[in-house]
Amino acid sequence: MRSLGLIERYRPYLPVTPDTHIVSLHEGSTPLIPAFKLSAAIHPKVEVYLKYEGLNPTGSFKDRGMTMAVTKALEEGYKVVMCASTGNTSASAAAYAARAGMQCAVLIPEGKIALGKLSQAMIHGAKVIQIRGNFDDALKLVRRVCEEHPIALVNSVNPFRIEGQKTGAFEIIEEFDGFAPDFQAMPVGNAGNITAYWKGYREFFDLGKSKNLPRMLGFQAAGAAPIVLGAPVEKPQTIATAIRIGNPASWKQAVAARDESEGLIGMVTDHQIKEAYKVLAATEGVFCEPASAAGVAGLFKLSEAGFFDNIEPVHGDFIRVVCILTGHGLKDPDNAISVAEETITVDANQDAILRPLNLDAVPA
Amino acid sequence: MRSLGLIERYRPYLPVTPDTHIVSLHEGSTPLIPAFKLSAAIHPKVEVYLKYEGLNPTGSFKDRGMTMAVTKALEEGYKVVMCASTGNTSASAAAYAARAGMQCAVLIPEGKIALGKLSQAMIHGAKVIQIRGNFDDALKLVRRVCEEHPIALVNSVNPFRIEGQKTGAFEIIEEFDGFAPDFQAMPVGNAGNITAYWKGYREFFDLGKSKNLPRMLGFQAAGAAPIVLGAPVEKPQTIATAIRIGNPASWKQAVAARDESEGLIGMVTDHQIKEAYKVLAATEGVFCEPASAAGVAGLFKLSEAGFFDNIEPVHGDFIRVVCILTGHGLKDPDNAISVAEETITVDANQDAILRPLNLDAVPA
Repeated sequence: MRSLGLIERYRPYLPVTPDTHIVSLHEGSTPLIPAFKLSAAIHPKVEVYLKYEGLNPTGSFKDRGMTMAVTKALEEGYKVVMCASTGNTSASAAAYAARAGMQCAVLIPEGKIALGKLSQAMIHGAKVIQIRGNFDDALKLVRRVCEEHPIALVNSVNPFRIEGQKTGAFEIIEEFDGFAPDFQAMPVGNAGNITAYWKGYREFFDLGKSKNLPRMLGFQAAGAAPIVLGAPVEKPQTIATAIRIGNPASWKQAVAARDESEGLIGMVTDHQIKEAYKVLAATEGVFCEPASAAGVAGLFKLSEAGFFDNIEPVHGDFIRVVCILTGHGLKDPDNAISVAEETITVDANQDAILRPLNLDAVPA
Repeated sequence: MRSLGLIERYRPYLPVTPDTHIVSLHEGSTPLIPAFKLSAAIHPKVEVYLKYEGLNPTGSFKDRGMTMAVTKALEEGYKVVMCASTGNTSASAAAYAARAGMQCAVLIPEGKIALGKLSQAMIHGAKVIQIRGNFDDALKLVRRVCEEHPIALVNSVNPFRIEGQKTGAFEIIEEFDGFAPDFQAMPVGNAGNITAYWKGYREFFDLGKSKNLPRMLGFQAAGAAPIVLGAPVEKPQTIATAIRIGNPASWKQAVAARDESEGLIGMVTDHQIKEAYKVLAATEGVFCEPASAAGVAGLFKLSEAGFFDNIEPVHGDFIRVVCILTGHGLKDPDNAISVAEETITVDANQDAILRPLNLDAVPA
């Protein structure tokens, strides 16, 4: 079932030739998991599916773009790739560069990336440079260094990244037998992913492979919501470190995706993100990183405001919504531990174990 | 491609009925990644493939067994599931119990499980009980508690776990168009997984769906190698926490798998495990947890001893070896950071970044 990487799966729709040496970790083909309890909690007319992008090889959607970006960098003769990152891009770039036998340098904001992501860039042998500044500073620097040196920039300003990432939309359409969902909800940080999905949906629609287009629902964190506010945010703040970005590189494209699809880009508070993150893990059994929960948080917010009350389903009895869960919860274990109930430590005997279980309270 | 969970994919081979309500997170169908550089480093006649079980929903192979065990527990009317765990089983049990709407209690050895795994059991809402004792103590306790109370035991002594896990062998055979690999290398801890794979290989062979059987190569950590030593290890020690087990529950079955397949169960040191772990991440771009690298470490050890020199391939020009990488590296970020090169922190300006990159040293 899942033996191909996404370039091989979607070769006719991607800028590769028969001679291209593909650098792949068998990314893509991630599960689309129905979320029954979540759907009921959000709205009786809504049917939510979770596109679990955390099951890509390095644990985030970034692998979709990185297989393309590193494949093309290798084809173009580069020996070094470089990126600025809040963590997921650096993990992915480091892994694909290692596989390609290329060097990799990553710039990350000091002390502001999740533990798992840092460990990935390091173990894959990237040169990890923490800078005293934020993501936007790092991206500015990396763009300049790559212009002036023979280094391939693999941030999402690299158009091959967007090409790879658009395949997420292809998979969703195929899974729904030629239909796009009514809505797609997702987090928005640097805004490359909403750009890529919208491109993918439009391409399959134009080719007649999808009968409809979805409405795109993007959500920023309230402390890092430049698109919602209409101006860059100098010091972005949020627990959702993956979208802690004050000046998105794909700002214009994200606005175009929103407007062309008759969607919206809204914002959710850290509290709302945290609640959605906990609900996903505790009721659906799906553990994502905090940023990934922004789309789900946004659905709760929209539903409470009556957004879905007067919407008619495109197809079938329910309003179909796909939430893109961009990264695995294991990327940020500290955060999970900080919001969960504490563990108990006891001696290794039966009485000591039975007490906290409180079996009498279990419904028969 | 990857829309089904493994029970739906392999329904005819699993103990479910049309009425069974399946509890699934779309586990299984994990990638089988060719490891070109690793193959060359191990032996010129060997072709290594990595079965990346870390891309199951909770990041380890345990999900294969857990979808079956929780599905059956629900069917049998249980309200609570319980397990002892070095971490991966508890993460998986907690996630599937959450999805099924069941309660989950997990017993883990205090202070001895990796950070990521602990965070998973907690965020999925399990009752996490750390005991002052080791895994073997925990398993003994849990078996007794489950015998005396209406709680479903979901450790690998639960036969449904083995049924689910055997599907890994089915996938490998299908990916190789009806051939089992010449060898399968894997870590051995509680020994349920080697038992399950061997069962899967035999079943497909007996059904005529596989033309051959593999030879099973199991590897224990030197500080926790009861099967190799022929006696339980009272205080098992290894950095590979997932196989830090002194008295495996499936000891007899593992020995049978070894002998019936004309394979072997050997041991590797923590140093050898760590080296294999680093090589996988730095040359193949595949990040696994330390225990997962035991199979690869074992291949290096066997090759150095001349093991492959006089082996003839079953089919084709190369000796085909599949290594089961049981868990994702993100399960244990601390360990990755401790073995990797340190990061550098600099000011956000171009000169400060260029210095550590040492671009002059990059081959043109």
